[in-house]
Amino acid sequence: MEKLKKYVSVKDEDHFYHQGAVELLIFNFLLILTILTIWLFKNHRFRFLHETGGAMLYGLLMGLIIQYVTKSPDVESGTVYECEKLKSRPSTLLINITNQVYEYQYKREISHHNVNGHQGNAMLQKMTFDPSIFFNILLPPIIFHAGYSLKKRHFFRNLGSILTYAFLGTAISCIVIGLIMYGFVKAMVHIGQLKQWEFHFTDCLFFGSLMSATDPVTVLAIFHELNVDTDLYTLLFGESVLNDAVAIVLTHSISIYSPKENPNAFDAAAFFQSVGNFLGIFAGSFAMGSSYAVVTALISFMHLTKFTKLCEFPMLETGLFFLLSWSAFLSAEAAGLTGIVAVLFCGVTQAHYTYNNLSPDSKMRTKQLFEFMNFLAENVIFCYMGLALFTFQNHIFNPLFIFGALVAVFVARASNIYPLSFLLNLGRKQKIPRNFQHMMMFSGLRGAIAFALAIRDTDSQPKQMMFTTALLIVFFTVWVFGGGTTPMLTWLQIRVGVDPDEDLKAKAASQSASNLDKNTTKAESAWLFRIWYGFDHKYLKPLLTHTGPPLTSTLPEWCSPVARLLTSPSAYGDQLKDGDTDYIINNDELTENYEPSAHIPVPAQDNTGSIQATGREDIQEGDLGLGGYKLQLQHTACQPQKNLLA
Amino acid sequence: MEKLKKYVSVKDEDHFYHQGAVELLIFNFLLILTILTIWLFKNHRFRFLHETGGAMLYGLLMGLIIQYVTKSPDVESGTVYECEKLKSRPSTLLINITNQVYEYQYKREISHHNVNGHQGNAMLQKMTFDPSIFFNILLPPIIFHAGYSLKKRHFFRNLGSILTYAFLGTAISCIVIGLIMYGFVKAMVHIGQLKQWEFHFTDCLFFGSLMSATDPVTVLAIFHELNVDTDLYTLLFGESVLNDAVAIVLTHSISIYSPKENPNAFDAAAFFQSVGNFLGIFAGSFAMGSSYAVVTALISFMHLTKFTKLCEFPMLETGLFFLLSWSAFLSAEAAGLTGIVAVLFCGVTQAHYTYNNLSPDSKMRTKQLFEFMNFLAENVIFCYMGLALFTFQNHIFNPLFIFGALVAVFVARASNIYPLSFLLNLGRKQKIPRNFQHMMMFSGLRGAIAFALAIRDTDSQPKQMMFTTALLIVFFTVWVFGGGTTPMLTWLQIRVGVDPDEDLKAKAASQSASNLDKNTTKAESAWLFRIWYGFDHKYLKPLLTHTGPPLTSTLPEWCSPVARLLTSPSAYGDQLKDGDTDYIINNDELTENYEPSAHIPVPAQDNTGSIQATGREDIQEGDLGLGGYKLQLQHTACQPQKNLLA
Repeated sequence: MEKLKKYVSVKDEDHFYHQGAVELLIFNFLLILTILTIWLFKNHRFRFLHETGGAMLYGLLMGLIIQYVTKSPDVESGTVYECEKLKSRPSTLLINITNQVYEYQYKREISHHNVNGHQGNAMLQKMTFDPSIFFNILLPPIIFHAGYSLKKRHFFRNLGSILTYAFLGTAISCIVIGLIMYGFVKAMVHIGQLKQWEFHFTDCLFFGSLMSATDPVTVLAIFHELNVDTDLYTLLFGESVLNDAVAIVLTHSISIYSPKENPNAFDAAAFFQSVGNFLGIFAGSFAMGSSYAVVTALISFMHLTKFTKLCEFPMLETGLFFLLSWSAFLSAEAAGLTGIVAVLFCGVTQAHYTYNNLSPDSKMRTKQLFEFMNFLAENVIFCYMGLALFTFQNHIFNPLFIFGALVAVFVARASNIYPLSFLLNLGRKQKIPRNFQHMMMFSGLRGAIAFALAIRDTDSQPKQMMFTTALLIVFFTVWVFGGGTTPMLTWLQIRVGVDPDEDLKAKAASQSASNLDKNTTKAESAWLFRIWYGFDHKYLKPLLTHTGPPLTSTLPEWCSPVARLLTSPSAYGDQLKDGDTDYIINNDELTENYEPSAHIPVPAQDNTGSIQATGREDIQEGDLGLGGYKLQLQHTACQPQKNLLA
Repeated sequence: MEKLKKYVSVKDEDHFYHQGAVELLIFNFLLILTILTIWLFKNHRFRFLHETGGAMLYGLLMGLIIQYVTKSPDVESGTVYECEKLKSRPSTLLINITNQVYEYQYKREISHHNVNGHQGNAMLQKMTFDPSIFFNILLPPIIFHAGYSLKKRHFFRNLGSILTYAFLGTAISCIVIGLIMYGFVKAMVHIGQLKQWEFHFTDCLFFGSLMSATDPVTVLAIFHELNVDTDLYTLLFGESVLNDAVAIVLTHSISIYSPKENPNAFDAAAFFQSVGNFLGIFAGSFAMGSSYAVVTALISFMHLTKFTKLCEFPMLETGLFFLLSWSAFLSAEAAGLTGIVAVLFCGVTQAHYTYNNLSPDSKMRTKQLFEFMNFLAENVIFCYMGLALFTFQNHIFNPLFIFGALVAVFVARASNIYPLSFLLNLGRKQKIPRNFQHMMMFSGLRGAIAFALAIRDTDSQPKQMMFTTALLIVFFTVWVFGGGTTPMLTWLQIRVGVDPDEDLKAKAASQSASNLDKNTTKAESAWLFRIWYGFDHKYLKPLLTHTGPPLTSTLPEWCSPVARLLTSPSAYGDQLKDGDTDYIINNDELTENYEPSAHIPVPAQDNTGSIQATGREDIQEGDLGLGGYKLQLQHTACQPQKNLLA
């Protein structure tokens, strides 16, 4: 009998393993369906439902099916048991039930009011995964990929505007949503639609910060497919990438904002502490991310005499690249910083330095690997969002709150885009036209980050209501705005079918011609960028990559022994080697292209011709800031011929 | 106060997230260390410690550090609590502790004797992951990669021997280990070294089956690096791949073998049921795996007029390929079959059919993706094995048992390799020399599969003792035998630096020359393979890929409407297109190369020359079975010129 029981238990355990397989299989099935649908849509050039929208829809349907098809709720799981002997909560609990000891693992704290809603469908419960999986496993590849695939030329061209939208815009959005929601909540309490919970102003701000993370992946995919105007694409892409980082740190700072006494009153000390937290966390995460990337660059660059270079083993190289980038995320999280911010800047830095050191094989491997991981993770998240409507047990649907949130989100988006665009246009040469502003307003979709931030904390009733609302706003914006992108583009008469390189060239040419008289003032306003560019070009690039001038020529003479040690032998030989024109441009080209236009004022059209004749890469990282300005860098000692020729 | 408490709980939760990050970071750190070590070793051509051995060593050291550095055991977790009201075990348990409700999730059943050993280090406990992660996430990519990267030419050339070692050999090994261990256990009980547990013969057989899964990844890596004789490599690789599948199904069958009455007595009915189970599970898993691959091939092959082919979207194609292959595993698990077997044959079938339909981009992407996943998963598993010595809480070290197991493992390996090699040599043209046999004997390392099978069930004391023993045997074999591979190769005077293609050609030539008179008998003995090859070439290849003759020419005339519908337009055009010479060889080449040698008996040396002149691909899948035999296939109707020329 004992024996028999044992076999039953083995079978039971087998069943347990198969359960894990069934849940993964359901996700696989959803993803396969999504891929087949995308294929179908791509064939019919059907752009009203993007893959993420499709994934969400399938997730929703699957949730519905599981909810009504699989077995009825587990009766036991709604009951709360008492254990008088327990005084604190252990991380693992051993319980004796009918003379068998079972091990239970601590999952979370449940508020009393949630206990009743807790008896759920066993299958759905098993499909609910830990929010930490979102943060530690699914989000990092998406964010890293955004940083790694950033087209730096276009990005830096619009850096000023992007930073303004991302930092100032997100802060505005957060505060506007917070204020509107606070008004709404007060009003709802007043008319009796909402009980007097502890729905404080900080909670409203928390909601504001998490709803400020935009995720226009749907819109960007369509932009990419249709080759929409590059400036618009870059503004939107850059804003959404940085804005996620800002929103996450903002949410973090608000959640640790703890006014001493009355949580509704304004506490200056606590507020400044929060601002300090924000800055500290942001800077710390940035430092963490970039230092991991610099370590990767150094390792991949190592050329000790006894050693074969790492790039001769592409598998090891790719592995190290992947692991160090992920470690940037994990270290930041472990240090109490924000991993997403770290991994974003890690991606940007990896693309800037490490990418140049990789073997051609690894360049492609890493690109494809992260592209693939991004694709899968994105679709898993959107499938899961669809499912979450059913898997999450404590939804609180409050139509008024949801309506208020929708209003708040749009008002906030408007008060982010329009005023800031107006201000930016005062300073920009290349104005942001009205139709671009409308398109940016329209592209304020909410997605993975808002969802992930909302699901991270669903303990209290306000937080649950926020989660439900956030989820529905994600559905609404992805389906309605995502689907409406193509008609909107037509309606706003935004150019499509633009070749990014040609576009940039034409714009740069017309700008450099019209800006000739303003060179000095422009250059001065961007002095910080110039200093950085010079430092990067003269010291960091040679130190971390095989490009740029040798350190022996850029460092002062008394440093020459160190410089010789640190300079890559290949740096002497092929300084003009330009392995990746998308990412790096040499200083020489830059000077060559800009010198003539600076000295001889020629009409715009001619100028374009001369630039095209000189070389393809005429816009470069050095062209930072708000418009086109001249970047004149001192030539490095080892290239006297070049100087003479110019 | 309430508020303060809430903030504390938020911070507590944050801490919880960071914990997850810390554990992942530790694994990342171990992997980074491993990669750097491999790089170092590769530079110094140091072959005494393979990456997997290194990973294990680092895991071990890390376990040791965590054990002694991190905080002392959680006091609560060793106590068993009683809950009178609970009558059965719920999957989630809500517990009221000091007026707070906590949710606990069911983890596992614990035997009473394990309760005391249960208080562990909290950090180590968190680093212990669920065995289902091994089976559902880490193992599938490794096994799939083995199937996908199988060099079919060499594999099929030695198929007979490989199948013999894998099926018969593993069964012998399982029974021998089972018998020896049973004897040992009896003896130990007799001398009082072992208490009279329920250590039955089936338990011993279970141990035998799990210890029969060899994993010579270390040896194979060195073979690959040194270009060891291809036949030896193929025999060992093929054996280890199939042997894993056999051992897993065997373990599964034994674990569900339930003799009705006395578990020690031989129950014929139960035994035959077990054999039936084995065959059923193996065949079912095989069918499941191949059908997923066939579905993938069909999808990637689809050429409906309205549709763009999937291969124009490499990302979707790769995604679908990845998801369908993983689904093969998960479906098999969900259906109660063996996922590992399914995913292995899925890999082989994907390589045979789907690979030919993929776009060049996807071909590379899938290869590199699985290579990378294989690399990471393998190193994670070996790191984890090192850690497991500390993370696992219920080790039972019994030196005598461990010694017995070591003896049993070697005796079993010997009674697998030597007798079977003797028998195979009776039938093989190309004998397996003595030194190859010794090398195969020496390469009987145990690794990931044995570990994964052992950790899957550690409920009872015998199972725990088996787990500990299996772990130590893995350490011992990987370090000692893995490290001794290079000296052993030298000592046994086995050829290194062999070019596989040249080698195969030379052997084939010498064989076909000496086998001319035996063609008829040989060909007859392999009639099953010939039928399969013909069927595959004439119907399956054209139906599932763009290679082979068009179906219109191979199907009978009354099928022509169907055939026309199913034939790829490109099949008419480039029948001789040979996109992947490693995987597929056209029938025509095969006939061309073999016809001359069959008709004109020439000396071996000349023959090699003529083959080299005709074409590089002279050995092919058709060359199945035990040696070289002539494969004469009917030419398909559409190539009359070829026939005339030959």
